[in-house]
Amino acid sequence: MTPLPEGLAFTKGHGTGNDFVLYADPAGERPLTKDLAVALANRRFGIGGDGVIRAVRVAALADSLGATRAPVDTDAEWFMDYRNSDGSIAEMCGNGIRVFVAFLIDEGLADLADGGSIQIGTRAGPVLVRREDQDYVVDLGTWKFCGGQGAVRRGCDVRVFAAGLERPLGALSIDVGNPHVVAAVTEEELEALDLSAAPRLVPAPEHGANVEFALVDQSAGVIKMRVYERGSGETLSCGTGAAAAGLAAWAWAGAAGPTTWTVNVPGGTLRVRMMDDVVELSGPAELVAKGEVISSSN
Amino acid sequence: MTPLPEGLAFTKGHGTGNDFVLYADPAGERPLTKDLAVALANRRFGIGGDGVIRAVRVAALADSLGATRAPVDTDAEWFMDYRNSDGSIAEMCGNGIRVFVAFLIDEGLADLADGGSIQIGTRAGPVLVRREDQDYVVDLGTWKFCGGQGAVRRGCDVRVFAAGLERPLGALSIDVGNPHVVAAVTEEELEALDLSAAPRLVPAPEHGANVEFALVDQSAGVIKMRVYERGSGETLSCGTGAAAAGLAAWAWAGAAGPTTWTVNVPGGTLRVRMMDDVVELSGPAELVAKGEVISSSN
Repeated sequence: MTPLPEGLAFTKGHGTGNDFVLYADPAGERPLTKDLAVALANRRFGIGGDGVIRAVRVAALADSLGATRAPVDTDAEWFMDYRNSDGSIAEMCGNGIRVFVAFLIDEGLADLADGGSIQIGTRAGPVLVRREDQDYVVDLGTWKFCGGQGAVRRGCDVRVFAAGLERPLGALSIDVGNPHVVAAVTEEELEALDLSAAPRLVPAPEHGANVEFALVDQSAGVIKMRVYERGSGETLSCGTGAAAAGLAAWAWAGAAGPTTWTVNVPGGTLRVRMMDDVVELSGPAELVAKGEVISSSN
Repeated sequence: MTPLPEGLAFTKGHGTGNDFVLYADPAGERPLTKDLAVALANRRFGIGGDGVIRAVRVAALADSLGATRAPVDTDAEWFMDYRNSDGSIAEMCGNGIRVFVAFLIDEGLADLADGGSIQIGTRAGPVLVRREDQDYVVDLGTWKFCGGQGAVRRGCDVRVFAAGLERPLGALSIDVGNPHVVAAVTEEELEALDLSAAPRLVPAPEHGANVEFALVDQSAGVIKMRVYERGSGETLSCGTGAAAAGLAAWAWAGAAGPTTWTVNVPGGTLRVRMMDDVVELSGPAELVAKGEVISSSN
């Protein structure tokens, strides 16, 4: 196992229960390698998190990014360098970017008044984050229904088979930067659902998908959902998944349906707003602890 | 959820992958309540650990212990106040006490030269911890085979039914302060074993038991084991479980068998030594990070 870097200053935080280890590397001197991410994110031998985030100045990016999968073309000062706990790269993370901005503010690296906004560089391109009261609002950009207009009219283009349920579920596949499949469930089904194993999707998306199970209260504009994330299993929250669930509920509700949805996930509450062809996600960001890696052996 | 106590200084450490959040409370001013333990041990909303340990001076114990299940009668200066991540009290923790002593030393609250020893107060009574090279040696005190002499001769008094195995396993029940059931397995069985569900014990011990699956190499004095802990499921390590496995292997080996065993658990390596009626456990203690709880909302 990679030794933890002694003396590294870190912050631990979460957005609706999706948690991260963050560190500042303004000058790009300590790249977030796969091994470093795995070591820091390890919950028993390291600090522990669903992901690790490095704050690095865009101007210092140069060679410190590793395998960048998307062009970095942004006026942003700060870049969110993100890796999952297994060391893999994620282009964006709807919960992570809110915690990232809270971290920049806490470190004195950025200033964001209520109503103000900041552009953050990510591998998915620049992302605008706004402050509203205690929450952070993230512009997730454009999205699309994957099954085409016919699928949206029928309300589904995928069938979901999940343990604990007696029937396959019709579901809608949606791309919000990453692939999602959203299925509507009853209250009983939401509880009975067993997500200790991956739900089976028919037809199976080429690169898999996160699967959201959504109990939709259309008149109140409220969704209660559980999520199964590719490669992670059931999680307490998935920011882009909440956005996908909001988009599915909006499609199912038809033209008169709400464009703003409250999405209750096991880890807390998120809000989703549809605006023309873009979707906004808002929610809290909590910083829990600040610390320093110490000599691992004593 | 209980808010985290802002400003609380903590250390995170582990012993062979069994991890803990520790804090010093010399004067007994910040009791380790059930709620505080649950909040700190929460891996996503808190710091994260298998347990939380408070270092409090024995002289300051007075009313800060909560429901103490065993008398505190010790000349020790420091008391290990331990709770599991679910907030329940554990009398002793074979991995935790090593990390506890490393923590006292790191905080400058105790001094322990190589070869020196220190007495620690615990709910199971005073426990002696010795320093040997980089390891800590813990005197776990007296132990007993629960099934009586006949059971030991036959090598078992319990049958274990575990998923993934084609046969029930004969096993020996051993009390090392807490109850254990140790079953011998083949290398294939150790790998095939599915511990996502609790193994079934026949007859079922009144208060349940931790179950160790041990691959014993008698000539080398080496055990490779996996463990299912009551209320926790499969874990990376169980200190008292390693001691129980050593005792079982010693009993199975007969009078000529080794009295010192190396026990490889998924999280690392422990050593067990039988001396008359007591058993010693030794292993590493790693401190990973020091930090402070910060304002949870930003």
